[in-house]
Amino acid sequence: MSGIKTITELQELFSSQLAEYSFPQVPSALYEPMEYIMSIGGKRIRPVLLLAAYNLYKEEVAVAFEGGLALEVFHNFTLLHDDIMDAAEIRRGQPTVHIKYDENKAILTGDVMMIYAYQLLEKYSDYYLPLCKVFTQTSREVCEGQSMDMEFETTDSVTISDYLKMIEYKTSVLIAAALKMGGILAGAPEQDLKHLYEFGKNLGIAFQIQDDLLDTFGTEEQLGKKIGGDIEQKKKTYLYLKSLELLNESQANRLRSIFLDQNLDMDDALVAEVKELLQISHVKVHAEELKLVYQQLSLSHLSAIQVPDEQKIPLQELAHSLLNRTV
Amino acid sequence: MSGIKTITELQELFSSQLAEYSFPQVPSALYEPMEYIMSIGGKRIRPVLLLAAYNLYKEEVAVAFEGGLALEVFHNFTLLHDDIMDAAEIRRGQPTVHIKYDENKAILTGDVMMIYAYQLLEKYSDYYLPLCKVFTQTSREVCEGQSMDMEFETTDSVTISDYLKMIEYKTSVLIAAALKMGGILAGAPEQDLKHLYEFGKNLGIAFQIQDDLLDTFGTEEQLGKKIGGDIEQKKKTYLYLKSLELLNESQANRLRSIFLDQNLDMDDALVAEVKELLQISHVKVHAEELKLVYQQLSLSHLSAIQVPDEQKIPLQELAHSLLNRTV
Repeated sequence: MSGIKTITELQELFSSQLAEYSFPQVPSALYEPMEYIMSIGGKRIRPVLLLAAYNLYKEEVAVAFEGGLALEVFHNFTLLHDDIMDAAEIRRGQPTVHIKYDENKAILTGDVMMIYAYQLLEKYSDYYLPLCKVFTQTSREVCEGQSMDMEFETTDSVTISDYLKMIEYKTSVLIAAALKMGGILAGAPEQDLKHLYEFGKNLGIAFQIQDDLLDTFGTEEQLGKKIGGDIEQKKKTYLYLKSLELLNESQANRLRSIFLDQNLDMDDALVAEVKELLQISHVKVHAEELKLVYQQLSLSHLSAIQVPDEQKIPLQELAHSLLNRTV
Repeated sequence: MSGIKTITELQELFSSQLAEYSFPQVPSALYEPMEYIMSIGGKRIRPVLLLAAYNLYKEEVAVAFEGGLALEVFHNFTLLHDDIMDAAEIRRGQPTVHIKYDENKAILTGDVMMIYAYQLLEKYSDYYLPLCKVFTQTSREVCEGQSMDMEFETTDSVTISDYLKMIEYKTSVLIAAALKMGGILAGAPEQDLKHLYEFGKNLGIAFQIQDDLLDTFGTEEQLGKKIGGDIEQKKKTYLYLKSLELLNESQANRLRSIFLDQNLDMDDALVAEVKELLQISHVKVHAEELKLVYQQLSLSHLSAIQVPDEQKIPLQELAHSLLNRTV
């Protein structure tokens, strides 16, 4: 097939279609915040993954635009509500919706965006049920992941397995669903749909582990945002949980007491102490190994997809670029 | 057809199926608030309307349970989020979800309920697309109605037509959708689906006008809640908007100034003054006439449905009981 587009071409195609797209306008109090959040950018990773998966089987990727848009609208709905829950004031360098407008508008506009995503999928009447089945199950899991993430803040007994399930739900399943939905839209065989999903799911988990690593051991340029936020917020990431296993008893007790004492505010000295403990534990090597396990699993599913290897190059390159913001 | 059930029988059937139904449990922080709000009652009007419409064509109404449940879950999702927006602390005599749990849980549990409603409809794979088309469009309109309602609080230039559109969207379309979805599930002909929808839509508008009337001119027993709330909250209902047309200039200016002066808090004397102005305007007669117009329109659509008249008795009785909480 000659019509394989590069990731850059897919990004440009999606952006140009989005620029032409007319969102609903009335009532403006409801739809203006939607237009605002959709206009301030983001990397459009989910729509591009959907288009790239579609392009494995079919050339006319412009047809799949509304599928990609549904995912992007859904993703931005989760950001609107997450930003309220986290009391976040800045998103992509701009004020969050509940700051720029107000909290009630951020709730209600988020709601209508969730609903609008389903309406966008109506274009694909032949595939509507299978598309929605994936989309609905995934959306539920995203909420479950967000709920687990919030619960972890006040739970002392989070396990590594809990943590991996949380990042799978909060982040990875939507990546996985994007790829699978692209395959469904293109009429891909059932076996390929499974591999597309698993490719995305494991890619997402590897990416999140890398994100955790960069947050502690990386630079601001690599991460694209301020370093050390996870430690400051006492996030119970893999790095923290695995360190508790690796450190000796007194070190582990010290680390645990810093994280679990709700009255202890993190200052620079405490952040530095935590970072030192994580370094002593050599958890970085373990996290890199774990990332590699998911990365290899991910690529093995990409290999198993029944299309010629040269057509997979854009997805390979995208995976490579996502997983190589060097630690 | 011998299998026509009374409204009471449909209510009991839905309640007993709901009592047997297992909602998702894990993570409990996400699903416990859902179980809570679903368990504290309500009249289950929307599921019963869906079942009654289904029962016009088919006997085995138990099959339609998940359709009714989807509507009830959706309706309760709107209550969770509306109660946050309105800072309401009590719902059906119990603490609202954001009070009993917290606001973040009320947002996130609301989100997952919205999504869960779509999942419930997956049972009906043969009718999934037409069901979702009605459900999605209706859900969007409910959000639009809520947005308009919030905007009216700070807008001076609300018209009667704006107000009627707002109550249509915020309240009536979900009643209409319940009836239409019941018809879709039963394979009703397209013409009947339109009449079911219009029956419900106009019934809902008539009901809301009656609700406004009772809030000002009724008793607590009739309304089922405290009288006078609309005036206290300076709600720009039909009564207020039409009175401005009916009163002489100085009376209208006085009424307008009470409602539009944001710094003027409503005390008992002001509430009494507004009530007096509404009485002088004779708006009650106009509102009763308007209610009757929608009521007759509603019943004309019920008449037009192509099933034997005796099968429509339960829906007639339900309409009658909803529209005769005597003013």
